[in-house]
Amino acid sequence: MVGNKYAVALVGYGGMGHWHARLLKEFEEIFLYGIYDINPEKLAAAKADGYVAYNSFAELCADETVDVVLVATPNDFHKEYIIGAMRAGKAAISEKPVTLSSADLQDMIDVSRETGKLFTVHQNRRWDGDFRVIKKIYDEGMLGDIHRIESRVHGSRGIPGDWRGQKVHGGGMVLDWGVHILDQMLLLVPEKIKSIYAHMHHVTNYEVDDGFEIVLHFESGKTALLEVGTSNFINLPRWYMLGENGTAQVDNFHAEGKIVNITNWDNRDAVPIVTAAGLTKTMAPRTKETIKEQPLPVVESDIHDYYKNIVAVLKGEAEQIVRHDQLMRVMRVMEAAFEADRLGQIVPFEA
Amino acid sequence: MVGNKYAVALVGYGGMGHWHARLLKEFEEIFLYGIYDINPEKLAAAKADGYVAYNSFAELCADETVDVVLVATPNDFHKEYIIGAMRAGKAAISEKPVTLSSADLQDMIDVSRETGKLFTVHQNRRWDGDFRVIKKIYDEGMLGDIHRIESRVHGSRGIPGDWRGQKVHGGGMVLDWGVHILDQMLLLVPEKIKSIYAHMHHVTNYEVDDGFEIVLHFESGKTALLEVGTSNFINLPRWYMLGENGTAQVDNFHAEGKIVNITNWDNRDAVPIVTAAGLTKTMAPRTKETIKEQPLPVVESDIHDYYKNIVAVLKGEAEQIVRHDQLMRVMRVMEAAFEADRLGQIVPFEA
Repeated sequence: MVGNKYAVALVGYGGMGHWHARLLKEFEEIFLYGIYDINPEKLAAAKADGYVAYNSFAELCADETVDVVLVATPNDFHKEYIIGAMRAGKAAISEKPVTLSSADLQDMIDVSRETGKLFTVHQNRRWDGDFRVIKKIYDEGMLGDIHRIESRVHGSRGIPGDWRGQKVHGGGMVLDWGVHILDQMLLLVPEKIKSIYAHMHHVTNYEVDDGFEIVLHFESGKTALLEVGTSNFINLPRWYMLGENGTAQVDNFHAEGKIVNITNWDNRDAVPIVTAAGLTKTMAPRTKETIKEQPLPVVESDIHDYYKNIVAVLKGEAEQIVRHDQLMRVMRVMEAAFEADRLGQIVPFEA
Repeated sequence: MVGNKYAVALVGYGGMGHWHARLLKEFEEIFLYGIYDINPEKLAAAKADGYVAYNSFAELCADETVDVVLVATPNDFHKEYIIGAMRAGKAAISEKPVTLSSADLQDMIDVSRETGKLFTVHQNRRWDGDFRVIKKIYDEGMLGDIHRIESRVHGSRGIPGDWRGQKVHGGGMVLDWGVHILDQMLLLVPEKIKSIYAHMHHVTNYEVDDGFEIVLHFESGKTALLEVGTSNFINLPRWYMLGENGTAQVDNFHAEGKIVNITNWDNRDAVPIVTAAGLTKTMAPRTKETIKEQPLPVVESDIHDYYKNIVAVLKGEAEQIVRHDQLMRVMRVMEAAFEADRLGQIVPFEA
């Protein structure tokens, strides 16, 4: 601690490291104090930016000022640093994905229990507006019983050219974006998963997946599609949710979109669609009198709540928001998805 | 024949029966001559509309003027009428779906071979503009190698309230719309299907499916999603096709939409998307300099070609466009899809 402020030491001063450095300037009770990076240039940049620069992870761990170690390295290094930090008596926060397997995660959880040290993960996208809006619609039953949820993230830049394309470092889109949208989906639908379908893409990368479709079959019969693409030059909507009484669409990360509800099932008026070679009444649009279109609800969300929770946990005033059991379940779903893709089969899960 | 015109007798003067009656007024060499319907009111309407009205199917079959029998009844009656027509020496055309099982279809094909009579099906949506456009894009390689094709038909009126909701009559959306979009997809992708995933919906009907997702896994690794919904109050695009060099989207039956191609993979400029709780460069939109947007190609298509082909086949001048092997393959895919849904498993197909 420095005064009454918790001191964070960061491992890895890359893209996400810089993101945390900026965010950590905005708190009264926690701040970024020191940085370790294996790359001498990045370490020099840390020093130039005014942080304590450690020449080794051991030096970082030996600094008694440090309360919290934040790990934002390539994915395959998370486990080593997180366990090292806890053993050195520090609280430990990992970037996502927490690690590469449920066995590794169990080791990390075991050390947290053994040392009594906080161990959690920066699942920041729980605070994204698009997710918060869809969760409100779900929780408040604005569409009636939900039967289908589709969560898509589409880009067109291929997979990033750095370690994110390499299997040994835990690259690939399941671990990069899948971990976010699965974490969101499991928070959204409080049900057991019966079975999992998955199909991985290899459009621009054969070593790791550069996109995927995963379908979760829930106990109630609901299904959820999780989809990531990196060769999609036109994007489908971020969220698409079907209930018995309506449909919600969230177009993008900025939570633009709409809800359309049915107001009158009995009115069956329809002007058939005449196509080049046929006609259809079943697929004709509903008359305006039977539906009601409305904007998406507005939901306040603040990523600062993440570090506020960390501080409250360190003070013994709250439970951690991102829990071990949640992390483990997402990891197991990802493992089941890889297995489903490998076998070309649907795999049972919590049935 | 009447003069030099082929005489068609129609069984079933319902929605599609009327559609054929209108279309058959537009040809020089074939026309609608007579109608049989089990419903006396519909039969009276046929008479009032100027057609020969038969009091029984036997009476229709005994009319030597009739060259072609066109069956537009509920699906479970197709087989009986089609076989009866061929045995009476008539050419036979069935509405889709041709029948309820591959075993029944085999019986119909056997009678066609035995009698030497034309037997085909009105797969009219091969001539729809949206399909023709996507087929041109595929065939001309406008997106480079294709890895994913999505074909969706979304409505919001539930399943029709008549026999289309009853299992005994061959109701349900797989047989109603699935048969169209599967027929299109199998024409589009000239590859063996390795395996099939399917999930049927029962939002408003528990007896038959009122929607579905079917995924075909092709030999090359391509996948195709076929999706029908009848409780979708917002529609996703009719077609969405991903190639290594571009994406095509066809919004609707009227073939509106666009193509976006990549023109420069090497330019990796990106302005990261800043969301409420993070940022992403991977999913950031491409700069305008690296992509080219263009309208969909225009494709001429004429449903009259269907009956022109029938006339040419009757004259011995052409092969039938809608072939027995194609009908059988679609029927087997539908059966495999029902089996996949029942088992909750991916089923092997032509692997």
